[in-house]
Amino acid sequence: MKRYKVGILGATGAVGREMLNILEEYKVPIDSLKLFASQKSVGKQISFNEKEYMVEEANEESFQGLDFVLGAASNQIAKKYKDSIVQSGAIFIDNSSAFRMDDTVPLVVPEINGEDAFSHKGVIANPNCSTIIALMAISGISRLSKIKSIVASTYQATSGAGAAGPVELKEQMRALLEHKEIKNSVFPYQIVDNLIPQIGNFIENGYTTEEMKMQNEGRKIMHLPQLKVDCTCVRVPVPRSHSISLMVCTEDNLSIEDIKREISLSKGCKLLDNPDEFLYPMPIHTSNQDLVYVGRIRKSLINENAVCLWCCGDQVRKGAATNAVQIMMKLIGLKY
Amino acid sequence: MKRYKVGILGATGAVGREMLNILEEYKVPIDSLKLFASQKSVGKQISFNEKEYMVEEANEESFQGLDFVLGAASNQIAKKYKDSIVQSGAIFIDNSSAFRMDDTVPLVVPEINGEDAFSHKGVIANPNCSTIIALMAISGISRLSKIKSIVASTYQATSGAGAAGPVELKEQMRALLEHKEIKNSVFPYQIVDNLIPQIGNFIENGYTTEEMKMQNEGRKIMHLPQLKVDCTCVRVPVPRSHSISLMVCTEDNLSIEDIKREISLSKGCKLLDNPDEFLYPMPIHTSNQDLVYVGRIRKSLINENAVCLWCCGDQVRKGAATNAVQIMMKLIGLKY
Repeated sequence: MKRYKVGILGATGAVGREMLNILEEYKVPIDSLKLFASQKSVGKQISFNEKEYMVEEANEESFQGLDFVLGAASNQIAKKYKDSIVQSGAIFIDNSSAFRMDDTVPLVVPEINGEDAFSHKGVIANPNCSTIIALMAISGISRLSKIKSIVASTYQATSGAGAAGPVELKEQMRALLEHKEIKNSVFPYQIVDNLIPQIGNFIENGYTTEEMKMQNEGRKIMHLPQLKVDCTCVRVPVPRSHSISLMVCTEDNLSIEDIKREISLSKGCKLLDNPDEFLYPMPIHTSNQDLVYVGRIRKSLINENAVCLWCCGDQVRKGAATNAVQIMMKLIGLKY
Repeated sequence: MKRYKVGILGATGAVGREMLNILEEYKVPIDSLKLFASQKSVGKQISFNEKEYMVEEANEESFQGLDFVLGAASNQIAKKYKDSIVQSGAIFIDNSSAFRMDDTVPLVVPEINGEDAFSHKGVIANPNCSTIIALMAISGISRLSKIKSIVASTYQATSGAGAAGPVELKEQMRALLEHKEIKNSVFPYQIVDNLIPQIGNFIENGYTTEEMKMQNEGRKIMHLPQLKVDCTCVRVPVPRSHSISLMVCTEDNLSIEDIKREISLSKGCKLLDNPDEFLYPMPIHTSNQDLVYVGRIRKSLINENAVCLWCCGDQVRKGAATNAVQIMMKLIGLKY
């Protein structure tokens, strides 16, 4: 079996570290590994498959000889090194939002549009975390009937803001219990005991950049250029796993039975919808694993061609790191 | 000025205690006060306007001579004493859901349908907390154009489950930080670090009783028998103030400017919508006060006759106790 030379850009962040875990777990055949991070992490040792690797700072020459570079860094870093990576002949699977809407860059959720990955010109983009989780949940519905619109309200975990997010939540819990001052630096306000209805920056139409991703990226991934999405993104005091309340309008009137069957058949999804036994998706049950859980499936009371549902998924894994590794696995013909 | 003889049924619970605070704060002219609670609270002293009152157990004779009984007890208790209260000549303003959908009982949010209160036959119902907060937020919109449908996702605080809810959240935070077992009794699962997409009991159509209230009660309060609501109710780890993400469809295409102006003119609402300065409603700013905060107002991208918004309000106060006291004030001609 061919083994691959892989680099990780941003290897010490929440997503980068998770990419390493997932490469190990999924037994991706690695020949050599290069770990890149910012200067302050240079020299750190990170173990992978029982071997120690030294973190180094990337430069234009760093990517020579690599087969894949998995990007878990900022848009700025992704843009800085893109040309060097492509010119070195490596395939750049990038988790930043820098290239997602670039027409020459496939934007891929392997279970939904995996074939798109093969049309890459050196760069493949990994979608936004909430977008991946929502689209995974409704991909079964889209096989039954064309999706016309989605109303989405998100309940996004603190780890969506990086490894420092859950640390800030926990520190604020401690301060709250000890009646000390609650300090915030990761989030614009305290997140303990609170909800923050802003993720990303505001644009002219009143939506945030994060909220627009579900429509813009959803159109590209699902090949639905007319898809319309009303999204409200809210940060909640949960450390991990994003949850999303969805109302999905389709061209046809679908039965709940058909929808449930199709979701249960969706690769990467787990149908958990048994209200009588208090079974529905919750963040405590969906963290640190790769399935998107889907439940609370019921007909809309507004539109007979619509359905309401609730989904949860680990946004550091399937919403980011796992999806990127799965794109690589798709390209090299490895089952996941 | 006439002074009133008032009884409170369920005076020691979260809503009952808040009713006492609000009667004091709003300087409602009280002549005498009777505090009723279950046997285990009998004999407790509660102070009101610098006088001490003893909690007693209610019986069929307890309501003789009272002008108003404010109900903050269970459906069962409300049903048990309704006839005695009405026969005694008192007006029963009840916060339980026992009589809300009864055609002979007005269901009232004073700022929206205050006049309905005057058609009572001895009983007036106080609506569901999330319903009050959502309808308060959109009442300005309904003055501009008939509301046809609402898609709502709630973010409901633990105090919606009574005074024990926030205590359980705090105890679970402590257990989490001390690496101890997380115990739950108020909620079906741990609520710290989690979200629970179930409030109320499930009915046949897949919705919960809580979720159906927004449509059923909304129709009655707004005099919109055709109103359709898709609601998803979610418990979040926040101690107080419910938040709701709403998409509201109207008969006409309204401008955001008109909607903002009308909301800013809505009695009981506060428009807080200045994204450039990170100003939007959040639970930490809306608790322990009576206004419903409304922000994140923007045109739907799906339907030109729809608008998305986000609102927060203290569900123990405006969502329950304040609204009940305001109904009483409306009836006695007192400004609030």
